[in-house]
Amino acid sequence: MQLSDTTPSNVALVGVGTVGAGVARLLTEQADRLARHAGRPLRLTRAVVRDVARPREVKLADGVLTDDLASVTGDESIRTVVQLVGGLEPARSIMLELLEAGKDVVTANKALLAEHGPELFDRARELGRSIAFEASVAGGIPIITNIAQCLSANEIQSLHGILNGTCNFILTEMEEQETDYATAVAEAQRLGYAEADPTLDVDGSDAAQKLAILAHLAFGARVAWHEIPREGVERIEPLDIHFAAELGYRIKLLAVAELMSEGLELYVSPQLVRRDAPLAEVHGAYNAVRVVGDAVGRVWFHGLGAGQMPTASAVVADLIDTVVGRSAITFRTLELWSQRPPRVSPRDHQQVESRYYFRFSVKDDSGVLAEIASVLGRFDVSIASVIQHETGEEGSDSVPIVLMTHKTTEGAAQRATAAIDQLDAVRSTSVRMRVAD
Amino acid sequence: MQLSDTTPSNVALVGVGTVGAGVARLLTEQADRLARHAGRPLRLTRAVVRDVARPREVKLADGVLTDDLASVTGDESIRTVVQLVGGLEPARSIMLELLEAGKDVVTANKALLAEHGPELFDRARELGRSIAFEASVAGGIPIITNIAQCLSANEIQSLHGILNGTCNFILTEMEEQETDYATAVAEAQRLGYAEADPTLDVDGSDAAQKLAILAHLAFGARVAWHEIPREGVERIEPLDIHFAAELGYRIKLLAVAELMSEGLELYVSPQLVRRDAPLAEVHGAYNAVRVVGDAVGRVWFHGLGAGQMPTASAVVADLIDTVVGRSAITFRTLELWSQRPPRVSPRDHQQVESRYYFRFSVKDDSGVLAEIASVLGRFDVSIASVIQHETGEEGSDSVPIVLMTHKTTEGAAQRATAAIDQLDAVRSTSVRMRVAD
Repeated sequence: MQLSDTTPSNVALVGVGTVGAGVARLLTEQADRLARHAGRPLRLTRAVVRDVARPREVKLADGVLTDDLASVTGDESIRTVVQLVGGLEPARSIMLELLEAGKDVVTANKALLAEHGPELFDRARELGRSIAFEASVAGGIPIITNIAQCLSANEIQSLHGILNGTCNFILTEMEEQETDYATAVAEAQRLGYAEADPTLDVDGSDAAQKLAILAHLAFGARVAWHEIPREGVERIEPLDIHFAAELGYRIKLLAVAELMSEGLELYVSPQLVRRDAPLAEVHGAYNAVRVVGDAVGRVWFHGLGAGQMPTASAVVADLIDTVVGRSAITFRTLELWSQRPPRVSPRDHQQVESRYYFRFSVKDDSGVLAEIASVLGRFDVSIASVIQHETGEEGSDSVPIVLMTHKTTEGAAQRATAAIDQLDAVRSTSVRMRVAD
Repeated sequence: MQLSDTTPSNVALVGVGTVGAGVARLLTEQADRLARHAGRPLRLTRAVVRDVARPREVKLADGVLTDDLASVTGDESIRTVVQLVGGLEPARSIMLELLEAGKDVVTANKALLAEHGPELFDRARELGRSIAFEASVAGGIPIITNIAQCLSANEIQSLHGILNGTCNFILTEMEEQETDYATAVAEAQRLGYAEADPTLDVDGSDAAQKLAILAHLAFGARVAWHEIPREGVERIEPLDIHFAAELGYRIKLLAVAELMSEGLELYVSPQLVRRDAPLAEVHGAYNAVRVVGDAVGRVWFHGLGAGQMPTASAVVADLIDTVVGRSAITFRTLELWSQRPPRVSPRDHQQVESRYYFRFSVKDDSGVLAEIASVLGRFDVSIASVIQHETGEEGSDSVPIVLMTHKTTEGAAQRATAAIDQLDAVRSTSVRMRVAD
């Protein structure tokens, strides 16, 4: 039997930024390795960029670099295209043009999929083409293939992901270097882990976009990413990191999807994770996903969530899957933006239950704790433990009170803390975080 | 475009033990879910067992249960067979018979593959059939697909696996319950985590068989499992668990494959793993694998390594992959027992370098440490730290001395400890364990 074919498969690249250069490097420098896995050589025929004159960190063969997309769409020998243009436009138009031209597409553009996934997937299905997108979520961790293929015997019951490396780096930095939020953000920017404007990372939007993709894939949900309730890490203070540690926890920004009989709970929020739990051992720019399936039980995946070569690793795996024909098979049966009716509805976020960590900044006065406890009691929020140290900060008349609650609903927790924030003895807005199971 | 086909795909099961019953349960009770992922219904047409009269924990439709293998091999409508007969024979003969009859085969039998993999894979390739074997290593963790498919852009540089749940359970039990080895083994047997004769688990053979499969797959190695140097957990004492903890480590039985310029290092041995490393957080019957790839960096996979439903999860994923055609594609390009020349040779085990933990039981006498240090110096083994507590056990004239070394070779560590064991002041054979990086 023939083990390999020597006819190369022509592939093209659209967009040669950081990840694109990494993909080009693997295609040109590791050709033998890729040919082994693809059963035939992969030949990078075209790399389309806006400005061919700009210097690139990767050396391409003469004639490969071009600014003419038509040299790809018009070339029938090119069947597979890696599309790495960021943002929404012209990324969307290019993707549609490639599909119309009969190309199977590989992309890492999570924002594009989160925003225009239904349109792009519908069109690909109509045209009998495939879209592969492993690199769009969790960088080097092959979470898409694991959910769509490896765990296909399971009903997925929950997903807990650390999906934003910027936030995880910031939280790790605040804990390990004992710095405040602003200093940690500056360090993340200096090291290239955060953009000049990190808003979409730190406010939870990026994680919500990734969660939307995973939740569609795993649960057949139909939720737009911007409808996912989300909180970011901007309000976390060193004090919270300390109290969490004192209680045996670390703070992590978690993206959560959990199937309950009342519907699918979906949200992004900072949470206290027990220090001995695998998700608590995810440091710096790493990402991780914990999946619970009804047959497999708990499975964890943990790796680099971003960066040139980890992302290129995922893109090239998709490229090989597409060239050998696995992507076409998988794409046909994906739950993601399929035309099937949704299998689950989201649960009312106010009803989502959790234990909570509350921190109040209060006047250093006996009796305040009793006042707070009485408000909590009114909202049926029951206290599990309290930390109130003897003295507050020097030169300040306010002291922190930290409470851990028993299970309560998001709605009750919101209403109770809003009421407590109105008390005369309370100095500033309370901090409220979920405690992970 | 057609999203699904209503024509069922007929599948058969050979062997309905614990895992087989789990597979049958998924096929019969979760038919909708599997049809969604396979794009068509899967129909369990035959389940071949030795004794049809024996009661089974799963209810099968009339006429499915049979003791006649020919009802499967002779039925052309059955294209895919899940072969779950354990041991080497008749498992090997049945596998060959199924392949000859034109069936694609799914198996969980790691011992069969480790022993007869080359023959079975050659025959499958000659016949244009596929063998899928996700469940043969690490139970519910999809490590085979992740290495063979998801990480295909990478040169794998190292694998560190906790691949034997029995040993991991015993070590966790010894640590958490502060029991000795024999008590922990008895508890593992009581809970069904260890066989009545646990030899192949606790002596490292089971992990070596799994490591052989992974090393062939990831590195294109050609090493028989019984040639892999292996040590088990039988000699670990509560004292070692305590000293490891004092030094900031946990003891884990690791299966290691690491690519060095001198060749592939391959071995199974108990090692000290830093308590804050993800592999140290793998408790009880869980398995985990850390993979380092040159593009992706470090990736961890962590989940249940055995048990009815986790293993069935892997088997049924393979079954779906086979029915939809992904397995055939993957099988063609596998590095495992392919006819290609080996890409790496194993490194001389005596040359493998590591830091070491040594524990000596010595006469409670000043001067002994100096004697030991002098022997180590003679073998160029350099000491990084020492633990010697003031007093030994009550009523005993021997005290433990624990040494952590700097990097040295296995050969030097073996020779040095053998020489130390000859000293008059040394009471019993020394304990020697690697320290993981």
